[in-house]
Amino acid sequence: MRQWGTMTATQTTVRVHNFSAGPGALPLPVLERVRADLLNHAGSGMSVMEMSHRSAWFEEIIQGAENDLRGLLGIPADHAVLFLQGGATLQFAMLPMNLRPAGASADYILTGHWSQGALKEAEKLGRVRVAASSEATQFDRIPSGEEMRLDPQAAYLHFTSNNTIYGTQWSSEPVPPPGVPLACDASSDFLSRPLEVGKYGAIYAGAQKNLGPAGVTVVVIRRDLLSRTPAHLPALLDYRLLAEHKSLYNTPPAFAIYVAGLVLGWLRAEGGLSAAARRNEAKAALVYRAIDESGGFYRGHAHPTSRSRMNVTFRLPSAQAEKAFLTQAAEEGLEGLKGHRSVGGLRASLYNALPLSSVDALAQFMADFRRKNG
Amino acid sequence: MRQWGTMTATQTTVRVHNFSAGPGALPLPVLERVRADLLNHAGSGMSVMEMSHRSAWFEEIIQGAENDLRGLLGIPADHAVLFLQGGATLQFAMLPMNLRPAGASADYILTGHWSQGALKEAEKLGRVRVAASSEATQFDRIPSGEEMRLDPQAAYLHFTSNNTIYGTQWSSEPVPPPGVPLACDASSDFLSRPLEVGKYGAIYAGAQKNLGPAGVTVVVIRRDLLSRTPAHLPALLDYRLLAEHKSLYNTPPAFAIYVAGLVLGWLRAEGGLSAAARRNEAKAALVYRAIDESGGFYRGHAHPTSRSRMNVTFRLPSAQAEKAFLTQAAEEGLEGLKGHRSVGGLRASLYNALPLSSVDALAQFMADFRRKNG
Repeated sequence: MRQWGTMTATQTTVRVHNFSAGPGALPLPVLERVRADLLNHAGSGMSVMEMSHRSAWFEEIIQGAENDLRGLLGIPADHAVLFLQGGATLQFAMLPMNLRPAGASADYILTGHWSQGALKEAEKLGRVRVAASSEATQFDRIPSGEEMRLDPQAAYLHFTSNNTIYGTQWSSEPVPPPGVPLACDASSDFLSRPLEVGKYGAIYAGAQKNLGPAGVTVVVIRRDLLSRTPAHLPALLDYRLLAEHKSLYNTPPAFAIYVAGLVLGWLRAEGGLSAAARRNEAKAALVYRAIDESGGFYRGHAHPTSRSRMNVTFRLPSAQAEKAFLTQAAEEGLEGLKGHRSVGGLRASLYNALPLSSVDALAQFMADFRRKNG
Repeated sequence: MRQWGTMTATQTTVRVHNFSAGPGALPLPVLERVRADLLNHAGSGMSVMEMSHRSAWFEEIIQGAENDLRGLLGIPADHAVLFLQGGATLQFAMLPMNLRPAGASADYILTGHWSQGALKEAEKLGRVRVAASSEATQFDRIPSGEEMRLDPQAAYLHFTSNNTIYGTQWSSEPVPPPGVPLACDASSDFLSRPLEVGKYGAIYAGAQKNLGPAGVTVVVIRRDLLSRTPAHLPALLDYRLLAEHKSLYNTPPAFAIYVAGLVLGWLRAEGGLSAAARRNEAKAALVYRAIDESGGFYRGHAHPTSRSRMNVTFRLPSAQAEKAFLTQAAEEGLEGLKGHRSVGGLRASLYNALPLSSVDALAQFMADFRRKNG
């Protein structure tokens, strides 16, 4: 097994090339910092896992994370930032519970498994409409503006900015009718590129792709929409209450917020979101070139105009070849390349923390494998 | 500042005596293990924070945690174990959503802030009754069996086994009417002593006292009660669905589950729950003795028959003396002794991971402080 390592004062760390779709790779300097401070954070004499969430140490951690997130995305003051639990799946329910008034309908654009999941949760609780869908072509692309049938009375228009399973991504946001807030599940491309947050009513993202470990979910929401929250929602499902308490109504997932804060600091140090977008573009270009130059040996799932820079999905000539690809890739230290169980095939996830050198290794492996098996 | 340390191969770690009410102290060997494996778990070449929750590595982690929990508590096969998110506060809502049929009422015993919180959440969603309360005496004790007015038709009877803020604890469970399931918020004394799980319909506990870091919540529920879950609950609030998927319906808080698993392994290695109970009893006895032998200088809040072995709450003759106590204690490396903001005073939390040596240091400090200021 060929692997890449980093030598620290204490040990040689053998690490793999991590193409996992999420939870995915974290930046090595972040992990090294977590390790260094694990028994004693900032001279507190405690681990972050052991300290009160009401302590000055944790106040600095969560406020620092919010400040860095605001700085990176340019989040306007009229948007609140929440650090919650339950992943995007809980947001699928919280969004309609909070933002869809009784009797109103919400619009959903279907571009894959997760947008279907969001629709399904919203359907349990009230009225929904499908504004557009690419299901007829196996979710191989993002619907065009002409295909959308938007409800001007919708409580909000919901879309999924990147489709992890199918490997498609919106290049720019859909445009909702005037007065209809745009709501986005950005779980799998959040912080991978700049975003005009002012265009959004609500953005939510599970952390475990580009932001940090699983267990914390970020919600960015325009404050005026908080007035829609109805009375008598359970406290942990109530955006307004959670915003009033600045995510500290009850004990938050403190360690996950701490690690996310370190990732945000790393992103800033690496040049912010424009620089991240350039790196991600370069990484994705390498893999798509390996596909496009393979003479049909590798077949990309996504229509070229809808290709994701986060998740590259492709097939090989046979299931047998795909199996051999995965086995031999693992022998080279290339991990997490198996496609989602619902669609099969291969998938290379190229989140922020995955270095270009890992993508180079993959592209080289793809060329070698094709030469031997093509 | 006097502190206790441990010398490892790589650094001297200065750690405080951590009396925090939660998140609280974790066992030092657990933290050292987390640190050692942080960049490369079990030869995977990844951190636990970076790996798929569908991987064989994580399957082993979550299954191992469940097995150790079952072994420690003797959980019968007819009880399911769930690892969820949102803390006890989300369970305050999920319990009635799942276990209280439409139109039915649930009984609550009020013994402090958190049982009031549980009642309040259940009240938002349907009918409740107060079966007993010690509010008239500032929650200084656990109601006796004679004080209870139990509803034989109740959907369940809910109690809070340990009251973190007031420092009281049930010495044995309340006895519900025949056929009424017993439901318990055990957040702050879970795993501190053996439990007859067969007596319970549902037990839930946020991890951040005796089990692990904040961000994971354990629910132990009798499987036949899962049939009560109504249709169309949001997925992340649906006990039945979450049990069917063995806590992997969506991405779980993987790292928190991993650390909890290490804590469970540590607890087994230290002799299990009977041994833990003996250690906790000895620790609590030291602090209560310092109170009882202080000639009234330290005044315990809890009635002696209801004293908690987890959280010892006490006052000093004046607010000024309490402030001086906290300042001087911190100078001696005794941290986290401030009482909850809602009641004031002092509180020493003595969870499993707090060593006897820390309690010795506190008892010694209490005696010294009284001598100088009494």
